[in-house]
Amino acid sequence: MNNSETIDIMESVYARNEELAAKLNETLTERGVFCVNIMGAPGVGKTTVLLRILELLGSPACVIEGDIESDIDAQKLKALGFKAVQINTGGGCHLDAPVVEHAFADLSFSDGFLFIENIGNLVCPAEFMIGEHIKLLICAVTDGSDKPYKYPLAFERADIILLNKCDLMDYVNFDAKFFHDGISKLNSKAPVFRVSGETGAGFNEVVQWIQDKAKQLIV
Amino acid sequence: MNNSETIDIMESVYARNEELAAKLNETLTERGVFCVNIMGAPGVGKTTVLLRILELLGSPACVIEGDIESDIDAQKLKALGFKAVQINTGGGCHLDAPVVEHAFADLSFSDGFLFIENIGNLVCPAEFMIGEHIKLLICAVTDGSDKPYKYPLAFERADIILLNKCDLMDYVNFDAKFFHDGISKLNSKAPVFRVSGETGAGFNEVVQWIQDKAKQLIV
Repeated sequence: MNNSETIDIMESVYARNEELAAKLNETLTERGVFCVNIMGAPGVGKTTVLLRILELLGSPACVIEGDIESDIDAQKLKALGFKAVQINTGGGCHLDAPVVEHAFADLSFSDGFLFIENIGNLVCPAEFMIGEHIKLLICAVTDGSDKPYKYPLAFERADIILLNKCDLMDYVNFDAKFFHDGISKLNSKAPVFRVSGETGAGFNEVVQWIQDKAKQLIV
Repeated sequence: MNNSETIDIMESVYARNEELAAKLNETLTERGVFCVNIMGAPGVGKTTVLLRILELLGSPACVIEGDIESDIDAQKLKALGFKAVQINTGGGCHLDAPVVEHAFADLSFSDGFLFIENIGNLVCPAEFMIGEHIKLLICAVTDGSDKPYKYPLAFERADIILLNKCDLMDYVNFDAKFFHDGISKLNSKAPVFRVSGETGAGFNEVVQWIQDKAKQLIV
C-alpha cells in the first residue's frame, strides 16, 4: 500500500464524518438541543468543569461521556442526579459523529443542553465534528503556557476557552502573556475565561456566555 | 468504503511500522545506542523531566523532539548545550518508526543514549513502536489519580513510570492508593518513581534505573 492510498481513505473517513455531523447538528437544532463539545488534554478537569456548569445552568441538560475505558465520569454524574450515558471507544482517540448519533438516540432528549465530554486528547478530537454547536476547550495552568503553540488546531477551532486550575496559579510558572499571545495568533474570536473547578470561581460568566450563545443559535 | 476495509488498512499501517521499528531497534543496539521513548499527556512536564535526566546522566546523549508544531522544546535543549533535532508532525498525533529513522540518520550518533520525546498524547503514541528499548511514561499529580483506568494501554506498555509534579502534592486531591492500584492491575513490572521536575527531587534513582537497564540491554 502506498501513502497516497492511505491519505485518500483518511479523507473519505473525514468527509463521511463531517456529513453525518452536519445532519446530526440539524436534528439537534430542530429538537431544541444546544450541543457543547468539551475538549481538553487528560487531567485538565473536564468532568469537574462540566459539573460546575451543570450546577449553575438551571435548564434541562444531559451528558454523553467519552472515554477509552471505564465509566468513572458517567457514574460521578449519575450519582449527582444528572442524566448521563457513557461511550467507551476501546482504544479510539476521539469521538466521531456516528457514535454520538447512536448515544443521542438512546437519550431520547429534547429542549435543553447536551454536553459531550470528548476523549482526553489535545490532538485528534479537534479534527472531528460530532454534531456540536460550539467547541469548549479546557486548559490548565498546571500544564504550562505553551499549549497554543504546540497544539494549534484545538485552539484555532475553539469557540470558548477555559483556563482551569487558576487556584494553583501561585504555585506554578504560568506565563499568561505567552499563553494569550499564542491564542491571539490562532483565534481572534474565542473568549478566554479563568476558572477553578476546585473552588467554583469564574463559572457564572462561563454559564452566561453559553446561555447567550444557545439563545442565538437555537430558536 | 466499508469499515472492514478501513480496519485492514490500519492493520497494514501498524504491521509495517512494527517491522521498521524492530529493524531500527536492531540498528540502534548494534551502534551502542540505548533508546528511550518518552510518553505522556500534554503538560505533564516531559521536557523538564528530560532535562533533569540529561543533567545527571554523565554519558553522551542526544534527543529527538516530537511536536505537532513549534520547536520550543528543541530550542530549549540546544540552548543548554544538548544535541537535539525537532520533528514536526504537522497534525500527526504520534511519532512512528519511519520519521524517527529519518531523524536518527540526521544525528549520526553512536555509543550513548537517545531520548525521543513523543507527541503529548496519552492515547496514540502507546500504539506505535519507534525503535525504543524502553518506554518511559510520565504522569503528573495535578492531572488526577484516575489516569491508569482511563488510558490503560500507555500504562500497560510502560517499562518505567514517573509521577511528576510531586512538589504540588499538598495542593491537589491525588489519591495515591487509587493510582497505584490502577497501575498494578495493568502492569506488574514497571517501577513507579515519584519526582519533581521543578525541584529535581527523585531523579538520582530514575537515572540509576535507566543506566542499569541500558547495561542489561546494550553490551
